[in-house]
Amino acid sequence: MKKFLRNPKGSRDWLPDEVVKQEFVRKSLVKVFELWGYQPIQTPILINWDTLAEGSKKLSDIAFKLIGQQGDLLALRADLTTPIARVTAERLKGDKLPFRFYYVGKVFRYHARKTTNERELYQIGIELIGAKEGASDLECLKILLESFNKLGLKKYLVSVNHSNFWNELFKYFGNTALELYKALSKKDFILFKSIINKSRLSKPEKIFWNELITIKGNKEAIAHIKQSGRLKNKLSKVTSCFEKINSLFGDSVQIDLSLTSDVDYYTGIYFEAITPYLGRNLGSGGRYDQLISKFGFDVPAVGFSLCLEDLLLALELQGKSFDEFKSPKLISSGKNIKKTFDAINKLHKKNKSATLKL
Amino acid sequence: MKKFLRNPKGSRDWLPDEVVKQEFVRKSLVKVFELWGYQPIQTPILINWDTLAEGSKKLSDIAFKLIGQQGDLLALRADLTTPIARVTAERLKGDKLPFRFYYVGKVFRYHARKTTNERELYQIGIELIGAKEGASDLECLKILLESFNKLGLKKYLVSVNHSNFWNELFKYFGNTALELYKALSKKDFILFKSIINKSRLSKPEKIFWNELITIKGNKEAIAHIKQSGRLKNKLSKVTSCFEKINSLFGDSVQIDLSLTSDVDYYTGIYFEAITPYLGRNLGSGGRYDQLISKFGFDVPAVGFSLCLEDLLLALELQGKSFDEFKSPKLISSGKNIKKTFDAINKLHKKNKSATLKL
Repeated sequence: MKKFLRNPKGSRDWLPDEVVKQEFVRKSLVKVFELWGYQPIQTPILINWDTLAEGSKKLSDIAFKLIGQQGDLLALRADLTTPIARVTAERLKGDKLPFRFYYVGKVFRYHARKTTNERELYQIGIELIGAKEGASDLECLKILLESFNKLGLKKYLVSVNHSNFWNELFKYFGNTALELYKALSKKDFILFKSIINKSRLSKPEKIFWNELITIKGNKEAIAHIKQSGRLKNKLSKVTSCFEKINSLFGDSVQIDLSLTSDVDYYTGIYFEAITPYLGRNLGSGGRYDQLISKFGFDVPAVGFSLCLEDLLLALELQGKSFDEFKSPKLISSGKNIKKTFDAINKLHKKNKSATLKL
Repeated sequence: MKKFLRNPKGSRDWLPDEVVKQEFVRKSLVKVFELWGYQPIQTPILINWDTLAEGSKKLSDIAFKLIGQQGDLLALRADLTTPIARVTAERLKGDKLPFRFYYVGKVFRYHARKTTNERELYQIGIELIGAKEGASDLECLKILLESFNKLGLKKYLVSVNHSNFWNELFKYFGNTALELYKALSKKDFILFKSIINKSRLSKPEKIFWNELITIKGNKEAIAHIKQSGRLKNKLSKVTSCFEKINSLFGDSVQIDLSLTSDVDYYTGIYFEAITPYLGRNLGSGGRYDQLISKFGFDVPAVGFSLCLEDLLLALELQGKSFDEFKSPKLISSGKNIKKTFDAINKLHKKNKSATLKL
């Protein structure tokens, strides 16, 4: 076959046995979300370029752009959180808060994942809009853990951090902290150590930074903040947030002070889920209290999104078996097709699949 | 709110109560399709421009184009039939025929409908691949009628024509027939009559053409072909096809010799469904025996696609009522959030939705 008539790079087809597996993942998570009172919402795939850019510079850098019929600059949506923030501001201002939304939909990016070539992936997730930092963050993490359990995913790790932790470090350590953050976001620990060594940081400060990537366990992480000298007081709210998370979830959620975020709109906790089956991110989330106000409605929010393809791949690598399609009963058509159709319809009424033998 | 932060023209959001209605339509049709032995298939939204152009020039004219990261010319899919033809040739050559596929997915066009501005619409439909003209055409029409009945749509009209009818007219009458076809595709009956009047057609030929748009009922349509003089013999297969359709469906399917097609790949019957609630097309379909061979697999096929938005709109205009969301039970969090979550989970185990009072 001619090459140009194939699927483009980074896209995939789903044959029926693959759609059945995808549906298992979708339905399992939708079940969890709906039990928690979340309702489905859908937004368009073609969006105004400005909407995307207003939401996140990082996302707009990797989004597909195109020109509409009237010369308007459009984009393919690169996340669901930004469009849902837009529709909330556009159509729901004044309605009774909070809103609990879930979504299943495709996102488009030049490289949808850092490590692979996908340009088109399904995201599935929730947004809890209109509740401040606190119990709503815990609800969000709880639903994330329940989602994995509902799927039967055996091995996963949820790591959490807080944007105020890093914001205080940025304020206190300035450019050094910024450089260290960038090194961590690339998982470049050699660069991280070399920045510390070359810096003018004091000895206790160097210890503080070096330990950031060797902390084991939640209690050690919380203790690390409490030992942060002058920063300690400014971080008291972060500490209290982490203490609540630890008391509720224990080791199921790992406080990771070295965790960075790919998205630039988080203003509170942010978290990611990793599975050893894939060695990569299954999804991520966090609090974004300033995003919706950019669209004209000042309301806090928290949420997460997971990659449906990766959830399915992890389950397959774990060895999960899925139901298969039942073949329909085949009815030979004979000369009188009306009679054949009647016979088929009789089976349908008994909820049995049946079709013409062709 | 700033204008550029809104949804672009021709796109829409679906709030939860709207998604519930959409789901009713989707699930109802999927139920019909699955009972008939159809299986779900999904293809990407980002496709190679060449794939689309190979499938249909008409569709490629109204498709969104964009440039990929490597300068490759891409398009947003403008139908589902062409991508399904491609994946069938690419991945299923040699498998046991026939294939019965159904799909639900978005298509993108500068003007997705002729009469409105939508650029992004859901299509839902079936493809029956690997069966020649005959019983498979009847199966397809039968499923179309059952789909409307399953939805509870009270008023609709399915019209059918055959591409060989027009092909023989093109051969016999040449350019005059082409011009008359174009006039009909614009529903411009004044132009249609004026072309006939200005033409050098014989008197019986003028009568033949003039009657084409005044035929009432299937028997009259079939009689009209049988009275077509020298064309009659060349149209014997078309006549036999129409006779089978009439004998099986009676007035539920209207043979309309003046029906034209928007798509240029049909090679046998083609049909459309109209509802008076909207005064426009709910969807269309037909036989396309040469499309899949363009992608390297010579196999006949027939199918249809419906517009999910229009089906829903028709049901709403008909006055159908839909189920509403049940509000979840709200549990106050109190001081011990663990206990609150336990209480919520207890309700979830009984399949009752419950969530935090925030």
